[in-house]
Amino acid sequence: MKAYTGMRIVVVGGGAAGMAAASKAKRVSPHASVTVLEAGRFVSYAECGMPYYLQGIVKDLEDLLHYPVTEFTQRRGIDVRTGCRVTEIDTGKQVVKSQCGDFPYDRLIIASGASPVLPPELSSPDVHTLRSMEEASSIKASMRPGSEVAIVGGGVLGTELASALSEGGFRVTLVVRKHRLISALSEEVSALVAAEMEGRVKILWDTTVASVEGKGGQKLLETSSGQVRADVVIAATGVRPNSRIASDAGIQTTGSGAIRVDERCLTSEPGVYAAGDVAACRDLVTGDYGWFPLAQVSNKMGRVAGANAAGGEMSFPGALGTTLIRIFGKELGFTGLTGQRARDAGCKSVHITAGSRANYYPGRENVDFVLHYFPDGRVAGAEVFGGPGSAWRLNAVAGLISRGSRLEDLFFADFGYSPPFGPVWDPIVIAASVAMRE
Amino acid sequence: MKAYTGMRIVVVGGGAAGMAAASKAKRVSPHASVTVLEAGRFVSYAECGMPYYLQGIVKDLEDLLHYPVTEFTQRRGIDVRTGCRVTEIDTGKQVVKSQCGDFPYDRLIIASGASPVLPPELSSPDVHTLRSMEEASSIKASMRPGSEVAIVGGGVLGTELASALSEGGFRVTLVVRKHRLISALSEEVSALVAAEMEGRVKILWDTTVASVEGKGGQKLLETSSGQVRADVVIAATGVRPNSRIASDAGIQTTGSGAIRVDERCLTSEPGVYAAGDVAACRDLVTGDYGWFPLAQVSNKMGRVAGANAAGGEMSFPGALGTTLIRIFGKELGFTGLTGQRARDAGCKSVHITAGSRANYYPGRENVDFVLHYFPDGRVAGAEVFGGPGSAWRLNAVAGLISRGSRLEDLFFADFGYSPPFGPVWDPIVIAASVAMRE
Repeated sequence: MKAYTGMRIVVVGGGAAGMAAASKAKRVSPHASVTVLEAGRFVSYAECGMPYYLQGIVKDLEDLLHYPVTEFTQRRGIDVRTGCRVTEIDTGKQVVKSQCGDFPYDRLIIASGASPVLPPELSSPDVHTLRSMEEASSIKASMRPGSEVAIVGGGVLGTELASALSEGGFRVTLVVRKHRLISALSEEVSALVAAEMEGRVKILWDTTVASVEGKGGQKLLETSSGQVRADVVIAATGVRPNSRIASDAGIQTTGSGAIRVDERCLTSEPGVYAAGDVAACRDLVTGDYGWFPLAQVSNKMGRVAGANAAGGEMSFPGALGTTLIRIFGKELGFTGLTGQRARDAGCKSVHITAGSRANYYPGRENVDFVLHYFPDGRVAGAEVFGGPGSAWRLNAVAGLISRGSRLEDLFFADFGYSPPFGPVWDPIVIAASVAMRE
Repeated sequence: MKAYTGMRIVVVGGGAAGMAAASKAKRVSPHASVTVLEAGRFVSYAECGMPYYLQGIVKDLEDLLHYPVTEFTQRRGIDVRTGCRVTEIDTGKQVVKSQCGDFPYDRLIIASGASPVLPPELSSPDVHTLRSMEEASSIKASMRPGSEVAIVGGGVLGTELASALSEGGFRVTLVVRKHRLISALSEEVSALVAAEMEGRVKILWDTTVASVEGKGGQKLLETSSGQVRADVVIAATGVRPNSRIASDAGIQTTGSGAIRVDERCLTSEPGVYAAGDVAACRDLVTGDYGWFPLAQVSNKMGRVAGANAAGGEMSFPGALGTTLIRIFGKELGFTGLTGQRARDAGCKSVHITAGSRANYYPGRENVDFVLHYFPDGRVAGAEVFGGPGSAWRLNAVAGLISRGSRLEDLFFADFGYSPPFGPVWDPIVIAASVAMRE
């Protein structure tokens, strides 16, 4: 038995949030023992890079590891246990039970992430999901140059993956339940994305899958739009938080099933923190709980949870769910309240199309900008689709929304201008201006 | 004589601010008569595009006109008088005197811009300046493919122009008074810019010019670093506000010589507004008057001045002086208090170097980010130099600074992340995080 000279901090999950939490905890309290229990074989890997690994522009799966595990174990002094699935949390005895033994804790950080949700008709060994390094590796092994890939689901992952794989030379069929890509988007932006995909990806709209069957190496999908043959089938039908061990321990969750945490990332149970894709935090626009399973949110929540668990003091103010996606060389992004959610909240919206650069400067492309705002002028959300700079324009707006900004604040934000980077009346400024006039 | 059915608004100057003011005034008060008096032949032209016209990637000088003059005269109903220099403002009689007659006004908007400042040794017919369409045309006429161009001045314009002309195949010598490019930058960022220029532009550091002489088509510069021969000599030695007619009329100016205006863009004289490069507005960081002769500021001040002059209600909150420049495919930007000014104001600074994209994603380049902040944590300014996305990252920070943000606000701004657009810990977030630790 090792003698502890400080408190015992146990972290469930070695993803972005878990490793950020463990690293911060150790920095805040170097004498604490920090143990990470991870069910898989890898820690701190970049899920967001997997579409690009399958596309072929990231050559090696190991490139997706942010750090070798020795960075955590040797340099940061963290006890990392991989292949160690947690089966139960006993908050009374302050013990985590796992496949590799019991771990008593003084502070617990739950960062168990989220897992793909599969409808029954897709629950088949012939259907892949893409979340873990193991899954990425298994999909890659079944792909050959020019393979036919069927992707089920027109959400963020399905759309991004369809674009990346098509660019990688694969023949992609995207099976979409409605006539709509990425439900968070307004109809008009969603239609622009679809137009960008058309001719490069075969999209089956309004289509449900009845069954998937292996047929001598090939897979056969029975769908409401007919049969689809593919070499590889990937389901991108959403994720849900891995909160079962938490709710079994009596820890409160929200309607989305994610663990409720306060600004300190503390759960309803004293001494137990949660962070990352398993946790719900404050939605900066609505003030309610929101669930934002996104890497940049997970990392920051992890850091806050780790700091507070180790006796430090840090506050996580909340998030907007800012999402950026590359679609065939175009940049797509959205943040805050968008699409139908914005309408339901009583927001007004403007949609403008403007140039990404000065009109006389070469390489100008369209930027479509949708701004959603409350009747009192506070900005609620934004969507962008277009040429160079669109993604970071969206981030600039996200920064302002996170500070409770009004239309005037966007208009007068003093964004710099130079012909290669934008027109003198930038799309953001035009959108704010049009909205101010209304 | 034309019968006026509404108030008479006279605008001095047809640049960005003047035309924005005239257009807005006419929109707010369609029955007002709006007259623009412009000394040159052109209105509403893009000064910022001139380096790219000289470079050769903007083919036609007329491409730099944002609109044909008929857009203003016929579509917007504005009386535009070009070639009409204003000689005097009589605020008592409410009359503007000009080369093309006297114009009585009810409301006056001074948008007379700024002009190049030339030290005596550069006041020669052999030395060009670059500000008006006429000057751009004259420089272009004296350039041949591969011409040798000497640029005097290592500020924003000199540096941008040296980069653009070198890319355009011209042989450029840049004559710089100190060992420093762009004095607003920190030494370290300035040095990175210089390193990017070296080998492509011949830079003469710590060099003053004694005289410039024409010698059979060629120009000969006598400098403290020896003789320089060039086909074309361009002085980029700064600009000053064209405020003489205003100060002669008793209108107050600031130390920089620019006209003081309040939030409504009203000068010290009732009924007289000022906007654009001739005016000083609130510096959003210091709260003092600042002079920001930049297109995006001029346009917005012009709109505010026009709205208020016409009886509307608009406030200009101030500016940061956000400046973006392309340097050989790299992106340079700065905003707020930077370099020596930040140090003088008691700011602390951090400088980080991070990747423009996820480390596994192709095309990753360095982003150097300098963040200046007050001891209480409020962000004062930022500088960036680096690969794709750097300019709009700077704008994202500018937006937050204009809202009085603290380091924590930058860290938690919920900027979206995707491997093609940034690493999961973005350079902005890393810089904020490092500063928060200190």
